[in-house]
Amino acid sequence: MLKGPVVVNMRIDNLQYANWSEKIFRQMQEGGVSAVHVTIAYHENFRETVLNIEQWNRWFEQFPDLIFAGRWASDVDKAIESKRTAVFFGFQNPSPIEDDIGLVEIVHTLGARFMQLTYNNQSLLATGCYESEDTGLTRMGKQVVKEMNRVGLVVDMSHSADRSTIEAAEFSERPIAITHANPFDWEPARRNKKHAVIEAVTGHGGMLGFSLYPHHLQGKGDCTLESFCTMVARAAERYGTEHLGLGSDLCQDQPDSVVEWMRVGRWSREIDYGEGSASNAGFPEMPAWFRDNRDFGSIERGLADVGMDTQEVAGIMGGNWYRFYEQSFKPLK
Amino acid sequence: MLKGPVVVNMRIDNLQYANWSEKIFRQMQEGGVSAVHVTIAYHENFRETVLNIEQWNRWFEQFPDLIFAGRWASDVDKAIESKRTAVFFGFQNPSPIEDDIGLVEIVHTLGARFMQLTYNNQSLLATGCYESEDTGLTRMGKQVVKEMNRVGLVVDMSHSADRSTIEAAEFSERPIAITHANPFDWEPARRNKKHAVIEAVTGHGGMLGFSLYPHHLQGKGDCTLESFCTMVARAAERYGTEHLGLGSDLCQDQPDSVVEWMRVGRWSREIDYGEGSASNAGFPEMPAWFRDNRDFGSIERGLADVGMDTQEVAGIMGGNWYRFYEQSFKPLK
Repeated sequence: MLKGPVVVNMRIDNLQYANWSEKIFRQMQEGGVSAVHVTIAYHENFRETVLNIEQWNRWFEQFPDLIFAGRWASDVDKAIESKRTAVFFGFQNPSPIEDDIGLVEIVHTLGARFMQLTYNNQSLLATGCYESEDTGLTRMGKQVVKEMNRVGLVVDMSHSADRSTIEAAEFSERPIAITHANPFDWEPARRNKKHAVIEAVTGHGGMLGFSLYPHHLQGKGDCTLESFCTMVARAAERYGTEHLGLGSDLCQDQPDSVVEWMRVGRWSREIDYGEGSASNAGFPEMPAWFRDNRDFGSIERGLADVGMDTQEVAGIMGGNWYRFYEQSFKPLK
Repeated sequence: MLKGPVVVNMRIDNLQYANWSEKIFRQMQEGGVSAVHVTIAYHENFRETVLNIEQWNRWFEQFPDLIFAGRWASDVDKAIESKRTAVFFGFQNPSPIEDDIGLVEIVHTLGARFMQLTYNNQSLLATGCYESEDTGLTRMGKQVVKEMNRVGLVVDMSHSADRSTIEAAEFSERPIAITHANPFDWEPARRNKKHAVIEAVTGHGGMLGFSLYPHHLQGKGDCTLESFCTMVARAAERYGTEHLGLGSDLCQDQPDSVVEWMRVGRWSREIDYGEGSASNAGFPEMPAWFRDNRDFGSIERGLADVGMDTQEVAGIMGGNWYRFYEQSFKPLK
């Protein structure tokens, strides 16, 4: 007997920043990853972001049997039909729009679908999670959120401070996202999100993508699959399964110089270790059960093992992001 | 009795650079202009060109009942159905792609559909019509033409020198265009095109758009409608009607400072008068029978009066550009 709508086998990872290569694109295909949201800017300005898009255009040209530029939810269907991965662009910082609100529509036209309002620090738009004072959305922040709503660029608050995130969730006319973080109640990392924050985001129709980045896991790289999946199941009870998905934050094959770029960019002459430390400055070791894109099956089974039903698991693995893509990427009329 | 395919009443002007305003957008609607190719860059670099696109995005938002962003030939049909004008972007110079071939695909994604390889002067790609030596396509020029072919950005040689134009016509795998110029045989202006040049372009499937800019007309602003239309009819006999259309070069409501920008940009400290002169430096007076977008009907009647049949006239007024759009704007597979 069927229970609810037909379950489509769809895997969407809503945050990766790998050192991209044919090997990884093939692993996505093997792992059945139909769509991936990739970070294409941390601190890049507009012109540098365009250079990164140019690099992706070359990869799309070189590997047409593996990947293509994702624009709309329907591209996920296209990816499933052709056994490829639709690649959606996102920024972890608003640096690509500089101080120019007109660039919001331009970057959307160029394929951007997610933009964080802040990356750890205060930005022109809001406050990051490492600042000591959180003043919420700025004047420009409110204007930019409205414009993002209009064109179909999703507000992402993964690296933002609590008040800024709650204000964004309430101010935005369209649901927002925390693409990659876990509940603070489970693992009290600075980047994980407190109950009130997750509640504000999901309560306004938004999404939380669970992170597999060791600094966000209970026990870091030693976190067990069961602990992770139990956390997901508890969050589903608390916030509603339909608001949950994955945002692995997989940084596969990146050299440690890249995590320094992510943390320091060009904003400081001193090293900032972010979630790491002087003695542990590089990329942390991933958990044994999630090494690369071929390991999504483990999570799928892990979620079933902690008692989630087939439909809930399918939602977490991709269906919920798919529905969110459908609602979020088209311009408002 | 029907002769050939059904004639669709379609008007396409394949080159304008007006001082855009609601007034002009309304005049396009009144004049039944279904599509217009507008210049959005003369000497602008990439970032400045993006600012110009941002300005167009605002106009599209402000005047949705009059204009919208044109991307494909099918947008001309959409314009006809909704009695609006589809606006296609073009550059008179390759300055928007700077020295970066990856920007060819980026500007196409942002809506650019025509790009001149040169504007009067030598560029990184080819030689302009005011240089004393014409060395043809450069090394980068050949690479860029290939890339333009691949993505669907039309090579426009309106302001290029003869050899460069002929080489581009022969080298390009897809038909190219001279969007706005007239036969040199009719009016020996520096910007008008010699027989061998037009033959190379049309002989390879390309298009010539007839200019209404007074410096390109026999007798300048005093040119008669009959003289203009007779010239068109002779060109039709010589090159085939299907390769001909309009590219009025209408610069309506522009102040004279703009023609100086067009000619001098930032490349010279001395004034260059281009087709003008010290005593006649500003925009020339338009012919009385073509003042603005409401005057296309005069040309349509004028063409019929010199003996062109209904289908030929419909082709010149828009049908030929429509077919060219269909063949030219999509990426090669």
